[in-house]
Amino acid sequence: MRNVVVTGCPRSDPGEVARLAEFGVATVHEAIGRTGYLGPAIRPVHLGSRIGGTAITVVCWPGDNLMIHAAVEQCQPGDILVVTTTSPSSDGAFGELLATSLQHRGVRGLVTTGGVRDVAELHAMNFPVFCAAVSAQGTVKATAGAVNVPVGINGQRICPGDVVLADDDGVVVVGRSQVGRAAAAAQARAEKEKASRAAFSSGELGLDRYGLRAMLTRLGVEYLDHEAYLESQ
Amino acid sequence: MRNVVVTGCPRSDPGEVARLAEFGVATVHEAIGRTGYLGPAIRPVHLGSRIGGTAITVVCWPGDNLMIHAAVEQCQPGDILVVTTTSPSSDGAFGELLATSLQHRGVRGLVTTGGVRDVAELHAMNFPVFCAAVSAQGTVKATAGAVNVPVGINGQRICPGDVVLADDDGVVVVGRSQVGRAAAAAQARAEKEKASRAAFSSGELGLDRYGLRAMLTRLGVEYLDHEAYLESQ
Amino acid sequence: MRNVVVTGCPRSDPGEVARLAEFGVATVHEAIGRTGYLGPAIRPVHLGSRIGGTAITVVCWPGDNLMIHAAVEQCQPGDILVVTTTSPSSDGAFGELLATSLQHRGVRGLVTTGGVRDVAELHAMNFPVFCAAVSAQGTVKATAGAVNVPVGINGQRICPGDVVLADDDGVVVVGRSQVGRAAAAAQARAEKEKASRAAFSSGELGLDRYGLRAMLTRLGVEYLDHEAYLESQ
Amino acid sequence: MRNVVVTGCPRSDPGEVARLAEFGVATVHEAIGRTGYLGPAIRPVHLGSRIGGTAITVVCWPGDNLMIHAAVEQCQPGDILVVTTTSPSSDGAFGELLATSLQHRGVRGLVTTGGVRDVAELHAMNFPVFCAAVSAQGTVKATAGAVNVPVGINGQRICPGDVVLADDDGVVVVGRSQVGRAAAAAQARAEKEKASRAAFSSGELGLDRYGLRAMLTRLGVEYLDHEAYLESQ
Amino acid sequence: MRNVVVTGCPRSDPGEVARLAEFGVATVHEAIGRTGYLGPAIRPVHLGSRIGGTAITVVCWPGDNLMIHAAVEQCQPGDILVVTTTSPSSDGAFGELLATSLQHRGVRGLVTTGGVRDVAELHAMNFPVFCAAVSAQGTVKATAGAVNVPVGINGQRICPGDVVLADDDGVVVVGRSQVGRAAAAAQARAEKEKASRAAFSSGELGLDRYGLRAMLTRLGVEYLDHEAYLESQ
Amino acid sequence: MRNVVVTGCPRSDPGEVARLAEFGVATVHEAIGRTGYLGPAIRPVHLGSRIGGTAITVVCWPGDNLMIHAAVEQCQPGDILVVTTTSPSSDGAFGELLATSLQHRGVRGLVTTGGVRDVAELHAMNFPVFCAAVSAQGTVKATAGAVNVPVGINGQRICPGDVVLADDDGVVVVGRSQVGRAAAAAQARAEKEKASRAAFSSGELGLDRYGLRAMLTRLGVEYLDHEAYLESQ
Repeated sequence: MRNVVVTGCPRSDPGEVARLAEFGVATVHEAIGRTGYLGPAIRPVHLGSRIGGTAITVVCWPGDNLMIHAAVEQCQPGDILVVTTTSPSSDGAFGELLATSLQHRGVRGLVTTGGVRDVAELHAMNFPVFCAAVSAQGTVKATAGAVNVPVGINGQRICPGDVVLADDDGVVVVGRSQVGRAAAAAQARAEKEKASRAAFSSGELGLDRYGLRAMLTRLGVEYLDHEAYLESQ
Repeated sequence: MRNVVVTGCPRSDPGEVARLAEFGVATVHEAIGRTGYLGPAIRPVHLGSRIGGTAITVVCWPGDNLMIHAAVEQCQPGDILVVTTTSPSSDGAFGELLATSLQHRGVRGLVTTGGVRDVAELHAMNFPVFCAAVSAQGTVKATAGAVNVPVGINGQRICPGDVVLADDDGVVVVGRSQVGRAAAAAQARAEKEKASRAAFSSGELGLDRYGLRAMLTRLGVEYLDHEAYLESQ
Repeated sequence: MRNVVVTGCPRSDPGEVARLAEFGVATVHEAIGRTGYLGPAIRPVHLGSRIGGTAITVVCWPGDNLMIHAAVEQCQPGDILVVTTTSPSSDGAFGELLATSLQHRGVRGLVTTGGVRDVAELHAMNFPVFCAAVSAQGTVKATAGAVNVPVGINGQRICPGDVVLADDDGVVVVGRSQVGRAAAAAQARAEKEKASRAAFSSGELGLDRYGLRAMLTRLGVEYLDHEAYLESQ
Repeated sequence: MRNVVVTGCPRSDPGEVARLAEFGVATVHEAIGRTGYLGPAIRPVHLGSRIGGTAITVVCWPGDNLMIHAAVEQCQPGDILVVTTTSPSSDGAFGELLATSLQHRGVRGLVTTGGVRDVAELHAMNFPVFCAAVSAQGTVKATAGAVNVPVGINGQRICPGDVVLADDDGVVVVGRSQVGRAAAAAQARAEKEKASRAAFSSGELGLDRYGLRAMLTRLGVEYLDHEAYLESQ
Repeated sequence: MRNVVVTGCPRSDPGEVARLAEFGVATVHEAIGRTGYLGPAIRPVHLGSRIGGTAITVVCWPGDNLMIHAAVEQCQPGDILVVTTTSPSSDGAFGELLATSLQHRGVRGLVTTGGVRDVAELHAMNFPVFCAAVSAQGTVKATAGAVNVPVGINGQRICPGDVVLADDDGVVVVGRSQVGRAAAAAQARAEKEKASRAAFSSGELGLDRYGLRAMLTRLGVEYLDHEAYLESQ
Repeated sequence: MRNVVVTGCPRSDPGEVARLAEFGVATVHEAIGRTGYLGPAIRPVHLGSRIGGTAITVVCWPGDNLMIHAAVEQCQPGDILVVTTTSPSSDGAFGELLATSLQHRGVRGLVTTGGVRDVAELHAMNFPVFCAAVSAQGTVKATAGAVNVPVGINGQRICPGDVVLADDDGVVVVGRSQVGRAAAAAQARAEKEKASRAAFSSGELGLDRYGLRAMLTRLGVEYLDHEAYLESQ
């Protein structure tokens, strides 16, 4: 890893971010071809929040939060901090004081593959965090890392300026050049979902709506009465 | 696995289900000889719900929810959907649209060894889900599986029509032929617990109430004053 | 393990416990040199509680809660029960009835490396539990263990009478002889944090407040404009 | 769980067991419709063995091996011991002394969801073990369980007398009534695999042999030259 | 994910691959700035092999190996197949038959975040596999994916044609444009290690050779005699 | 944690260490009352070694091996290095060069809760390592820790100079003051095991040898013929 702080990164267009942020994580993930999801290990500490913004990326050494401090300076309103470590770490590298700094700068939340602490205080100050662990374990400030280089989480690539959306289903990332297209696709999907919701609440079956009966037949799925099934065992 | 949808499965008697559902998961698990518990990996997404109903069972391929769609059609009021996969899968195979279908049919909730998504929406629509993961990761509808065959979770066997109870302690299953007996045993246990609760809140000790002092003596447990213990080290 | 119940253990001074309990788990962990933390695996079942008290320690066999019953008798007001097992166990060795006993004796909560059950009831009766699992799985009362011997959790040593603090960040333990010093250090740290909070909410950066710019330079971290960085790749 | 030792269980036919045991675990699992596999968590301690035999089933309490001792008496030549626990346990419930007893009775190996110890000695005495953990942690003999009742592992049901096959790929179980059919299916599959092996070693592609090109087309998989792909990104 | 098979991908220069493959995984990982390591979850099934080659990348759906078949056709001598799944999967998506195809084409081994089977046969035919699981669980061929698109494992990005090295320490990837530089750096590091090895085997200490005594002093590490330490506790 | 290197620690008596090291890990763990076992997560990289020696303890920061270098200087012939980290870390903090240093000083092996690398080289130079992970991931030398302070692993306390035994079953620690007693107890147990081995190889059952039939009766375990059991279900 090159030890570098990259400055002046372009962000996704704020209007497009806002438009995309109207949709939930699952809807956007579907709309962009089932990509961008950062995996089930990254969860909100408290359920009930939903945020969208532009990524500032950070790579820290395990047990060390030096580069998060370096990243704060690079943040501007509408950003979301995205933190990874060079190897798995559950330590509480982020807490109330860093959140105070970020909130002052207009940052909307934190996404991390590592741990956070002061979670009661973070909740009270309304700073959403999505993380893999809650841990009071402290960190040092002793080892170099990187800010605003591309990072990988759950096989997904996140570049500075990409859009990050997070809600109770987890976190999804959308590449900067794809935000407009993603918003349109999410809009289309949301409308399709709305129609399906209405249909399902009226009793239509997915089997019919999605044409799955033919699929079941093609795959050789049999329908058997309970008695016949028991006899065949 | 035989690729089959079994239809017309008998259910446990609704009156007996209702009677059994008055008791918590832990009480019923104890009452039926410490069996039927589906393990600590299956948790409610939101704490605070309690459901009881009859099992419709589903076996899906990982990353595929085709058979859940096939199962919906087999559901009737009072059922609970129980989903497993042929190998571990955290994908969000179940979400708001399927819940809309199920709620229309009077289904009381979902139990799955896999993942769910749209959890904010599921909570808003008051559809309880008990699962091993929350994940926005989408699934396909491409591979056969089974509906209403016996399935195994945490070493417990669940047949269609069995009673499923779920609350903040997890999920327990009671075989269809045992529901009446289980309700009676749970009633007896609940009364015993009520008496114990009263005794313990008045200061009686479990050591005395359960006759454990003799057990400790038989097992050779010594009582030693703190000073004597330190000297003996 | 010696099978023993140690009686008459001295406790940390109640006044000092109360003084220390004013601070959060993360603050105290930092104040005592980043020690005493019991790790991210032990979590509150419900977020939002904070307790402090003196440890009664218990070592149980997996799947067995006999020694918890023996420990109840050793508890007095202001204590917190700390339970471990000789090998990993998620079973629900603790529930509402034991909590009733403990609450009668003035015990403030439970910390365990194992599992609990009846969590809805525990929440309703306002008895905080910090644990590694929720499980309805029942336990027996058949095997010896120990009460009030030193135990180890997450590499930390906990002796009876030590102070235990628990909140949404987890659990920290402070040795009996260190409580006064720890409270003073926590007070100093809390004041320092208060000043930092004020500074950060006014826009000061951690980079400046903690003198980290020199550290970054010494570690060879470069600052590069986004364009220059892209060209260098 | 009913605390019972079931005696006089019928076994699968020895000739059919021998015939089935000529095939590997993966081949048999495929031949019987991708069922019966006990999952990737159960592994051989030492690579390189392959066994087949008839199941004697045991359910133990965690940290307790009493019922393994009860099971030994039920074993006869050609059996394989299959051990589970009522909740997860890594303890070394099985070691050299039990293996000595079993080897005397003609038992061919051990399959367990728990732990074993004395693994150097077990290897030296040529007693294959397939387990989820190696652990020196000792167990007690204090709690009831069951021998020769149906057990569930990885969602598969194992009854006494069923055939168990184990090799470096893990463990598969075949129901007693299906052994003959399974052996025939495995034979057919092995022959098919032999033909495929010859074809593949001559350069034929799976794409052609299995007719997958049409499948790729139907699924919309495009072929794109590297240059064209880069330009499209 | 775009469902695409990218053809005609350029490979790293064979001479440079050969030169780089002279060094171990740990040495190369260090030489390129502690990057490229695919993490401790990917392990050789049998210890003792070392391979180097050029990456062909595959993205499969969990429980589905269709795209591995599509990838075989894209392989040429000197390649190593690198397989990921869209969500975690331990299924045995790769076995002896696919290895036969690959070996015919001169492929040197397999790296996968998923599972393999037929491991005894793979070892016998001398085809090294590095994987996260061994599992007999079969897969289907039903869902689209991608071949030769960039993939992410453990936060590292792997493009087709990159160099992959694998030995008993795991797997490291080196970007195609960096292979020459990496080989030179690995050479330099290997020479430095050789000198250090000689020094250490003569009794020189790392404390002196790396100048760490000053570091310890600067960090405030005290040296205390055992007696003095005990008194200070 | 106090940042200290404790010097001049007394060791267990070499003669007693040698005497104790004649016994396997499981035997010694049993002989000292089922204590001292460091758990199933710490495994040999290569099966087949057995070592015994005196502990030099090290506490490192995750991702940092500075204190291992400091510890080398404190080692003398017959020692075994025991390394822990302040929070979980799988990084390869130990490799061939450190082993060269240690081997020069007569150190017999490494036990670590973290990771190692260069495992092929370590095996070739006959330096046994017992660890929780193999990882090529490099570490820095930037953060203070401690050498020769008491550490806790798996709930067991290890002090410098204690005896550490390691074999294919894992690692056990015996307190310095208990070594003589432990050796005597292990001798007694080994003799008892030898007698049991002879008895079991002659067909005696554990049920009879350990008097377990009465236990089964007392616990209410029934014996039921297979036919009777099926009818009762």
